[in-house]
Amino acid sequence: MFIVAARYLFLCDEDFTILENQAFVFEDKILELGELDNLKKKYPKAKIIKTPKNSVILPAFINPHTHLEFSANSTTLHFGEFLIWLKSVINSRSILNAQAKEELILQSIKKMQKSGIGTIGEISSFGSDLDPCLKASHKGMRIVFFNEILGTNENQVEDKKQEFLKRFENSLKFKNDFFIPAISIHSPYSTHPSLAYFALDLAKKQNLLASTHFLESKAENIWLRESKGGFKKWLENFTLHPKPLYTPKDFVKLFKGVRTLFTHCVYLKEYEWLDKNLHSITHCAFSNRLLSQKSLDLKTALKSGLNIHLGTDGLSSNISLSLLDEMRANLLIHKNFDLLELASKLLQMVTLYPARALNLNLGELKKGKIADFSVFELGECDKKQAPLQFILNAKEVDKLFIKGKECKF
Amino acid sequence: MFIVAARYLFLCDEDFTILENQAFVFEDKILELGELDNLKKKYPKAKIIKTPKNSVILPAFINPHTHLEFSANSTTLHFGEFLIWLKSVINSRSILNAQAKEELILQSIKKMQKSGIGTIGEISSFGSDLDPCLKASHKGMRIVFFNEILGTNENQVEDKKQEFLKRFENSLKFKNDFFIPAISIHSPYSTHPSLAYFALDLAKKQNLLASTHFLESKAENIWLRESKGGFKKWLENFTLHPKPLYTPKDFVKLFKGVRTLFTHCVYLKEYEWLDKNLHSITHCAFSNRLLSQKSLDLKTALKSGLNIHLGTDGLSSNISLSLLDEMRANLLIHKNFDLLELASKLLQMVTLYPARALNLNLGELKKGKIADFSVFELGECDKKQAPLQFILNAKEVDKLFIKGKECKF
Repeated sequence: MFIVAARYLFLCDEDFTILENQAFVFEDKILELGELDNLKKKYPKAKIIKTPKNSVILPAFINPHTHLEFSANSTTLHFGEFLIWLKSVINSRSILNAQAKEELILQSIKKMQKSGIGTIGEISSFGSDLDPCLKASHKGMRIVFFNEILGTNENQVEDKKQEFLKRFENSLKFKNDFFIPAISIHSPYSTHPSLAYFALDLAKKQNLLASTHFLESKAENIWLRESKGGFKKWLENFTLHPKPLYTPKDFVKLFKGVRTLFTHCVYLKEYEWLDKNLHSITHCAFSNRLLSQKSLDLKTALKSGLNIHLGTDGLSSNISLSLLDEMRANLLIHKNFDLLELASKLLQMVTLYPARALNLNLGELKKGKIADFSVFELGECDKKQAPLQFILNAKEVDKLFIKGKECKF
Repeated sequence: MFIVAARYLFLCDEDFTILENQAFVFEDKILELGELDNLKKKYPKAKIIKTPKNSVILPAFINPHTHLEFSANSTTLHFGEFLIWLKSVINSRSILNAQAKEELILQSIKKMQKSGIGTIGEISSFGSDLDPCLKASHKGMRIVFFNEILGTNENQVEDKKQEFLKRFENSLKFKNDFFIPAISIHSPYSTHPSLAYFALDLAKKQNLLASTHFLESKAENIWLRESKGGFKKWLENFTLHPKPLYTPKDFVKLFKGVRTLFTHCVYLKEYEWLDKNLHSITHCAFSNRLLSQKSLDLKTALKSGLNIHLGTDGLSSNISLSLLDEMRANLLIHKNFDLLELASKLLQMVTLYPARALNLNLGELKKGKIADFSVFELGECDKKQAPLQFILNAKEVDKLFIKGKECKF
């Protein structure tokens, strides 16, 4: 049993409460919040965790959308437009995947931990990230492991199913609190309906989380909604009369009853298609700037009442997997927001909201929540300014606790 | 005499030409560009500078707007709205200035050099930055030293003039290629016309550069244009019936015939007021996000034909003095631009354009230009993508040459 106190506790509750000079007691869960002296008296055997002067404690961040198999990219892939990027991915994915060896992936995960991330949602395209993810899960990184399925060729559907099933079933063997197998339907432009049904059926039967990329780019939007544009031209290289596999609405219907993270949704206006209780949107602002030719209208998205949270996407379309960097990028991209209001909203979007999306009992400093939290040192600053100043200045955790245990880097 | 070659030379000319696998010869100026082998034959005694594989060479960056006297700020000043910030500056400036000792300012300058900056425009409010700036100028940092004047109180005009004159004349003693005294009129809301005339008269007589902050915030805009808003309320604490000291147009008229950098201009629509030959706009996008409640409409500003370049502003309203960070911020803030087009434009806005604004014979890799340039290592990347990939990935120079001499950090 431990007690930890700080200048500011960002509870990351719905009201974004900040407690000043308060403390909490925890084991693997948070037992009680309150005045340090009172807690010391009530829990005399609890060990006191030392924290720096002017520190901030907040829930560990959750990055629900990474592609660690692309960790080797820095200057290889082409940015500016989605199809140009996609073609460069297809050209370079074997090389990049080969370069993203276990050590590199473990380094990327360690960097995320240092930046305060306690849980990730890893989109596993090839399965080569399984071993490093398992290793990292033994060192306190909580990983939702989304086994991805894709393929449009009718003739290869059975092969694809078997290949997916092998990866998926293998991942199930390791299921525990820190390694949570799940499924990913790559996207409406890349996943044959038979494959999508097949994988989502498994998700329903086994009550697993799902993830998908949806309406990410201008090209995808025109393709799905109007059956034309760059996607059509590109697909004509392989098929005589290519047609979209779904309308956007029909694609969303596939996920009925399945807890799903819809990633991007930059070109989605029909928020009512999504189920507020089960569906959420993972917003990857930096990635969108590199590929989408448009930003998510965050104000409208938040007003829809849906759960909107942040993710970094992979290094295939970002320069960092840190949610601190991603929040800083969001401050700049969403310039139509009041700065201070946006700062506290962004902190909820990397804690409370993704925890809900992933159905995890964490993401908030609250009695009964799993004790996933970080301690950061921050200069002397005004309480009202603290969320913004934290986002602007925080670089690395002083300490990171996951399920009540301190992570060692 | 030296020869240096690189995978890519970003000339930073008006067309943003990129030369691939080319070289140039330089002494204190650039003598000739061409094929490495040809140059070796033509200049057999020239020493070859080693550069990393896949390196980029480009003109040293120019950051024409810093406030090094505020280098101690990180979490002290309040952001989100200009007047809230201004009040926090007034409350904390003595403490911050006292903390920004010579060593801290020298550290800030060294960091800028490491990020590829060869010239800065330092706005000197108190003169406490003079000594470190002089020291840095001996170590290859080229400094345009803008002695700032401000004050609105009629009764203190003479004292303010004398205080300014003392700093100004002192700075003139050190004038050389690396230390260029200049003047700064703080702003239309803070500088009495008598003080502005006085300082600008000196600038005209001695043919010096001028700088000013102009139409930075919503509050300033409403105050100058409509004599109301937060500024009025605040000034009523000191004066019975406060009135603006100038209309925006009259303020600009003061600078007729003076080469001037107008910093911010977020709320300027009347670009025709400025003189295309002598006036330029220093755009500080990150600072504006923290204080201005609006971004410069960069597309319209560029279309006006005026010289628009970047600056970081001080650590009083930024988290970095690196123009690499500032360019990355600009990529996100100006999301209505095509990404690749914006990348090369931004590189001109930190080299060619500020050199013109400051009337310096540099900022371009071209025969006859002063040899201020940096070498960066960059991963293997496509030529068309190179400007963007450079901005996204570059962190620290491999080498920095100023007036043909390598800077040692």
